[in-house]
Amino acid sequence: MNKRIVLYIIGWVLIIEGAAMQLPALVGLIYKEPNGLYFVGIGVALILIGIIIVWKRPKNTTMYQREGLVSTALSWIVISLAGALPFYLSGEVKRFEDAFFEIVSGFTTTGASALTSVEDLSNCMNFWRCFSIWLGGMGILVFLLAIVPKVGGQQNAYLMKAESPGPIFGKVTPKIRDYAAILYIVYFGLTLIQFLLLVFGGMEVFDAINVSMSTAGTGGFSIKNAGIAAYDSYYLQGVIAVFMMLFGINFSFYLLLLAKKFKPAFKISEVWFYLGIIAVTTALIAINISNIYPSAYDSIHQAFFYVSSIITTTGFGISDVNLWPGFSLALIIIITFIGACAGSTGGGIKVSRVLILLKEIKKEFKIILHPHTVQTVKMDGKKISHETVRSISIFFMVYVLLFIVSFVIVSLDNFDFLTTFTSVAATLNNTGPGLGDVGPTGNFSQFSALSKYVLSFTMLAGRLELFPLFILFIPATWKKKG
Amino acid sequence: MNKRIVLYIIGWVLIIEGAAMQLPALVGLIYKEPNGLYFVGIGVALILIGIIIVWKRPKNTTMYQREGLVSTALSWIVISLAGALPFYLSGEVKRFEDAFFEIVSGFTTTGASALTSVEDLSNCMNFWRCFSIWLGGMGILVFLLAIVPKVGGQQNAYLMKAESPGPIFGKVTPKIRDYAAILYIVYFGLTLIQFLLLVFGGMEVFDAINVSMSTAGTGGFSIKNAGIAAYDSYYLQGVIAVFMMLFGINFSFYLLLLAKKFKPAFKISEVWFYLGIIAVTTALIAINISNIYPSAYDSIHQAFFYVSSIITTTGFGISDVNLWPGFSLALIIIITFIGACAGSTGGGIKVSRVLILLKEIKKEFKIILHPHTVQTVKMDGKKISHETVRSISIFFMVYVLLFIVSFVIVSLDNFDFLTTFTSVAATLNNTGPGLGDVGPTGNFSQFSALSKYVLSFTMLAGRLELFPLFILFIPATWKKKG
Repeated sequence: MNKRIVLYIIGWVLIIEGAAMQLPALVGLIYKEPNGLYFVGIGVALILIGIIIVWKRPKNTTMYQREGLVSTALSWIVISLAGALPFYLSGEVKRFEDAFFEIVSGFTTTGASALTSVEDLSNCMNFWRCFSIWLGGMGILVFLLAIVPKVGGQQNAYLMKAESPGPIFGKVTPKIRDYAAILYIVYFGLTLIQFLLLVFGGMEVFDAINVSMSTAGTGGFSIKNAGIAAYDSYYLQGVIAVFMMLFGINFSFYLLLLAKKFKPAFKISEVWFYLGIIAVTTALIAINISNIYPSAYDSIHQAFFYVSSIITTTGFGISDVNLWPGFSLALIIIITFIGACAGSTGGGIKVSRVLILLKEIKKEFKIILHPHTVQTVKMDGKKISHETVRSISIFFMVYVLLFIVSFVIVSLDNFDFLTTFTSVAATLNNTGPGLGDVGPTGNFSQFSALSKYVLSFTMLAGRLELFPLFILFIPATWKKKG
Repeated sequence: MNKRIVLYIIGWVLIIEGAAMQLPALVGLIYKEPNGLYFVGIGVALILIGIIIVWKRPKNTTMYQREGLVSTALSWIVISLAGALPFYLSGEVKRFEDAFFEIVSGFTTTGASALTSVEDLSNCMNFWRCFSIWLGGMGILVFLLAIVPKVGGQQNAYLMKAESPGPIFGKVTPKIRDYAAILYIVYFGLTLIQFLLLVFGGMEVFDAINVSMSTAGTGGFSIKNAGIAAYDSYYLQGVIAVFMMLFGINFSFYLLLLAKKFKPAFKISEVWFYLGIIAVTTALIAINISNIYPSAYDSIHQAFFYVSSIITTTGFGISDVNLWPGFSLALIIIITFIGACAGSTGGGIKVSRVLILLKEIKKEFKIILHPHTVQTVKMDGKKISHETVRSISIFFMVYVLLFIVSFVIVSLDNFDFLTTFTSVAATLNNTGPGLGDVGPTGNFSQFSALSKYVLSFTMLAGRLELFPLFILFIPATWKKKG
C-alpha cells in the first residue's frame, strides 16, 4: 500500500472542498446571514490543511487498484466529516449524527433528510445541502482529475473506476483529464438548461438553482418542507420529471451525441432498457392509481413523476404515495433497487448490471438444455468477459448481504417492517425516501444514532458501489507488500 | 426430448400415489368416515391409469438432464392435481384452488394452509395432509427409484439430481437404488423415534403420527387449529424442536454415521455452520424477547423452538411471534431464506449455497487486493468447481427474480407489505407461515385465487429448486433434437 499517495489525494480533496465552501459563503453574504461565515472559516481551514499535505508531491506515485479504492473511500469519509461541520458548529443542526447523516445523504446523492424542517435552515445551509448533491453526483475525484490531471501519476484510471457508478465495459480513454472535463461540461450544461426552464416557468431563482442541482445529482434534497409539491405547477413538475430521467441516462449517450456518433448512441441497449422500464412501470402504476386521481392525465403525471424520481434514485415527491395501492408500492420498491443507468448520476444496482444478470440467467437455461455447446453473453454486440459477469454476480451478492446486515441492525429501532425495509433500501440505493414513516412526507429524524450511522454507511457503500468501503476493513489492505 | 420416457415415469408416479392413498383410506376405515372411500376410489383410478401407461416399457430409455428435469416437474404437477381431488370431490374443501394450494403445500413440505379450520376436516383428510408432507419431504421420485430401480435405465441420477434439494458436490453413488432405499430407511427410522418419544410424553397416537410425519418432512401442517401450541408441554414441544433441527441436517451426516465413518461425518462444514446459525440466532432472539416471557428458560424455549422451526422451514408455531420485537422478526425473516442443509428435507436457499456464496465473496476481495494470484474456493477440503459456483450464483439470482415477480402479482391483493412479502418468502422457501396476516396464528385463506395459484407455483419452484419448473416454459425444451 502506497500510503503517501493516498494522503496526497486526500489533501487535494480537502482543498477542493474548502474552495467549494466559498459558494455557500457567497450565498450567506447575499442573504446577509452571519452563519455564512462558518463556510469561510471552515473552508479556509480545509484549504490550509490541504496545502500542507500536498506541498511535497510524493516521489512514488505508483497507484494500483488497491490505492485507488482506498483513496476513494477515505476521501469520501473525510469530505463527509468536514462537510458536516458547518451544520453542526453553527448550531443549525443540533446533533452531530444528524449533520453527518445529512451531508452524507447529500454527497451520495441520496436525499434522505434527518431534519424535521429544512425551512428553518438558513439559505447558505440549504444551498450547501443541494450543492453537495451536485458535487457528489458526478464525483469529487472526477472533478479533481478534471482540474489536477497528474494527481496520481499515470494510473488515474483506478481512481476514476473506483468512483464511477456502474460496471465499465470499454477501456477508459487514456486521456482521463479530457474525459473528466467533458463529463463535467455536459453535467453543467444540462443543469443550466434545467435551471433556465424552471425560471422560465416562474420558479424563484434561488429555488431553481437548488432544485436543478438536486435534480442533476439525482439527489432529491429540497429547500421546502413540502418538497416539490410546493411548486404546484404541472409545467415545473414536468420539467423536473423529464430532467430526472435525463440525468439517469448513461452519460456515454451524451458524449456520443456530442461527438456526432448518433448511430452508436442510439444503440446503447442499457438506455433502451431503462426507458422501457420507465414506460412500462409508469403505465402499470397509472392504471393502478387511476381511481385516486380525477383524470387519466393526472394519474399519468403522478405515475411518471414518481417512477422517474425513484428509478433514478432522486427521491423527489409530489404526493403521499403511501396512499397508493400495494401493487404500485411493490413496483416502486423494485425500481428503487434497479436504479438508473451505469455512468449516470443515479444510484441503485444499475440497469446494465440487471441486464447482464438477466442475460446470464438466460444463458444458464440454454446450458441446461444444451450442455455441450458454448454459450456467451453479449451486450451491445460485445462479448462480456467471464470476469465481468463474475464480478457483477459478486456485486449483487455483497449488495444483498449488506442489505441484510443493515436491515437487522436498523430493526433494533423497532419500526414497522415497511419502514425498516425501505429505509435501508432508500439509503443503500441512494434514493432518499422510502415508504411508511420514511415515505416522501416523512424523514429519518426519528431513528437512533446507531441507525443513522449505519444508514450513513449504507449510503456511502451504495454510492461507491460497495467494494472501496469494505476494503478498508480488511487487514491485508494495509500491508506494505502484496 | 424423449417424451415416451417422461410419460412412463409419470405413469409410475401415479401408481405410487394411488397406492399411497390407501393409507388415508385405512384411517377413514378406522374412524368410520365415509369420506375415506374417496381415497379408495381415486387411488384405484390412479393405479389403473398408471398401469395402462407403464404397461409397455419404452424401447428407448435414454434420459438426459432435460428429461430428468421435465419428468420431475411434470410428476410433481400431476401428483398435486390428483392429490387435491379427495379434498375437493368430497366437498370438505369447497374451492379447487384451496384444495390445490393445500396439497401443493403438503407435497412441497411448505405447510401453509388455505383452510380456516383444519379441525373441521375428517381424520382421513388430515392424515392425507400430513402424509403428503412425509412423502414430499424425501421425494416421490426418490421413493420410486427405491422400489422400481430400472425406471429410467442407466440415467436415474438425473431424476435424483432434479428432485434432491441443494447442490450435490460428490458424485452420486452408481447404485442409485441402494442410495434411495437407505435414505428412506433413515428417514423412516428417525420419524419412528420421534413418534415413540411423543407417545411416551403422553401425546395421542393419531396426533403423534401426524406431528411426526409433519416434522420429518419439515412441513409444518398440524391437525389442530392452535398448531403445536395445542400440545402445552415443554417436553413435547422440546422433542419437536430437536427433531425439526435433526431433519434439517444433511442426510449424508446420518449415512456416514451408519457407515461408522465418524471422522468425515463430523467434518461436514455445512452442518457446523447450520448449528452455529441456530445457536447464535436463538441466543440473540432469546435476549431480545426476554422481557416478554417470565423467565430466561421460557425465552430460550420460545426462541429455540421458533428458530428451529423457521430455519428448517417447518413452520410450526407455539406462540404469536407477531408480538415479538422487530429485531427478532428481522432475524426470523433472514433465516427463512437461509433454510436448512442441502440433502435434508428442509427448504430455503440451503446453508451450503450460502456458505459457498460467502466464500466466493471472500475470494473476490482477495482478488481485488492481489489481482495476479489464483484464488480457489474450497469446501470440506474439496475444490469447488467454477461451474458449481456459477450455477449457485445463477440459482440465487433466479431465486430473487422469482421472488420479485411473485411479490408483484400477490401485491395486487393489497395486503400490507409485511404480509405480502412474507407470504412469498414463506412459500418460496417452503416454510409455511410468514408474518402479519399470514403469521403462525393466521392462514392463506384470504388470498385471491390468482395469488393462491401463484403461491402454489412458488412452492413447487422452491421445492424443486427453480430450474425443473421453469424449463417447462421454454419452447426449446420440447424440440425433438438438441
